[in-house]
Amino acid sequence: MKICRFNDNRVGLVEGDRVYDVTAITAELPGLTWPVAPGDVLIAHLDGLKDKMLALRERATPLALADVKLLSPVANPSKIIAAPLNYQLHVAESAADSGIHNGVHLPSYEGFASPVAKFGVFLKSPSSIVGAGEGVKIAYPGRRNDHEVELAVVIGKQCKDVSREDAFGVIAGYAIGLDMTVRGPEDRSYRKSADTYSVLGPYLTTRDEIADPDNLDFSITVNGEPRQKANTRDLITKTAELIEVASRAYTLYPGDIIYTGTPEGVNSIVGGDVMHAEIEGLGHMDVAVRD
Amino acid sequence: MKICRFNDNRVGLVEGDRVYDVTAITAELPGLTWPVAPGDVLIAHLDGLKDKMLALRERATPLALADVKLLSPVANPSKIIAAPLNYQLHVAESAADSGIHNGVHLPSYEGFASPVAKFGVFLKSPSSIVGAGEGVKIAYPGRRNDHEVELAVVIGKQCKDVSREDAFGVIAGYAIGLDMTVRGPEDRSYRKSADTYSVLGPYLTTRDEIADPDNLDFSITVNGEPRQKANTRDLITKTAELIEVASRAYTLYPGDIIYTGTPEGVNSIVGGDVMHAEIEGLGHMDVAVRD
Repeated sequence: MKICRFNDNRVGLVEGDRVYDVTAITAELPGLTWPVAPGDVLIAHLDGLKDKMLALRERATPLALADVKLLSPVANPSKIIAAPLNYQLHVAESAADSGIHNGVHLPSYEGFASPVAKFGVFLKSPSSIVGAGEGVKIAYPGRRNDHEVELAVVIGKQCKDVSREDAFGVIAGYAIGLDMTVRGPEDRSYRKSADTYSVLGPYLTTRDEIADPDNLDFSITVNGEPRQKANTRDLITKTAELIEVASRAYTLYPGDIIYTGTPEGVNSIVGGDVMHAEIEGLGHMDVAVRD
Repeated sequence: MKICRFNDNRVGLVEGDRVYDVTAITAELPGLTWPVAPGDVLIAHLDGLKDKMLALRERATPLALADVKLLSPVANPSKIIAAPLNYQLHVAESAADSGIHNGVHLPSYEGFASPVAKFGVFLKSPSSIVGAGEGVKIAYPGRRNDHEVELAVVIGKQCKDVSREDAFGVIAGYAIGLDMTVRGPEDRSYRKSADTYSVLGPYLTTRDEIADPDNLDFSITVNGEPRQKANTRDLITKTAELIEVASRAYTLYPGDIIYTGTPEGVNSIVGGDVMHAEIEGLGHMDVAVRD
């Protein structure tokens, strides 16, 4: 099942290039009162609502996917987690390019099998989330602002201390993630957290549709020019282990997102550019950049 | 006004060593539906509810503050922001002690007036928040887990690009913050984000009660032994400028918390310890550490 959020917070099921409006499903969601439990309430209830969503789909008139404004399929992530340096060729380009490491983010990249095992994961601000249709606004004009395309994993249930063996059981689904980044000396959690610097889309593809998240072709072009092209089989720390590492530190909640890391080929974007990203099985999206 | 959250999400007004239960005020808060606007809905509506809270206080029977279990006065922070290296003597001890910098967090500390101006601020997971009565659970046994006491600022309204001159206008109030930290090579946003690693308390003191947040004595002892003692006048990047720096990157929401940075004297804690923290005008709190 492919679930999108679009226009003014409508919920849709995507089939090919069509969207079926099933927004009526939100009437099934519980009302919330202060204090609110962390997480996205639609993602939290997704499993129990799938049959009703399919029933609503039968009565819906399809819209053209190209005609709707796609928002982030997760509306309320309680946190956004990301893996640093998780493809070997990106480790190499980061170490070689002072425009990436800035003389600050250059600890010894040698002597350990996995940067994630040494550096852990990091956080991006939940306020940075946008969908494909909202686009990216350059937050640091005059500096190097980069695209980083990556597989994003959406957590489906509250969990803590999940072993890699059990990790797939806590996944709701997957989407394409753009971990937008300004280069500079600042902490990762600052450089990657500006408003619009976490793109998620085009929609959420539920876990059952992806046989192996660690074997997906993906790519990004900018104005048609190839930039990054890789396969998630080259993840140094695999999807399941990332969930283990993250959930060892903190409780995960429904709608939490893990950006799994970007491969080589990161490069800058400027206002007016259009990024086109795709991941095998998860669709494709155009994301406009503006000043 | 000093506002606490206690026991099973009750709301109280604190006067001296007494708590007046004004939980009925929560009936005034709007119900929420998916997608939920970011931020804490009680903090968002605080200004408009103060008179009604005072009226409720008149009819309330006081409880002893010592008898209630204090939760974080902010229930739903959409993000927790923190300043790195924001007291000169802590910069010096961090540079001198490999147990703090771990050979990784040792960029050149020279040549710039303010670490925040160079490194920005960083994020802690919202899932790490607890109140004084909940205590800290050691997440990394066998490693060095440190206390970092600091002034915490709670944002009162949605804002972006706030100048330092306008910054006090977006503050809801202040509390004591403990930025609990495991030392190691990991990103700050990982090392400081374990469940219970952000203590906020004992209660929220509203902005009007603090003439100058940049001139407050504060301290922490562990089992009665003095550890950190300083005054916020020694903040390198002051409270108002921290709001400027943070809001330049991302939209701030009601209930977002800024931990302003810790002074010299950071040191380890272990299960069984009791931390006692106080800040002039913001009260004091005992926080138990457990394995």
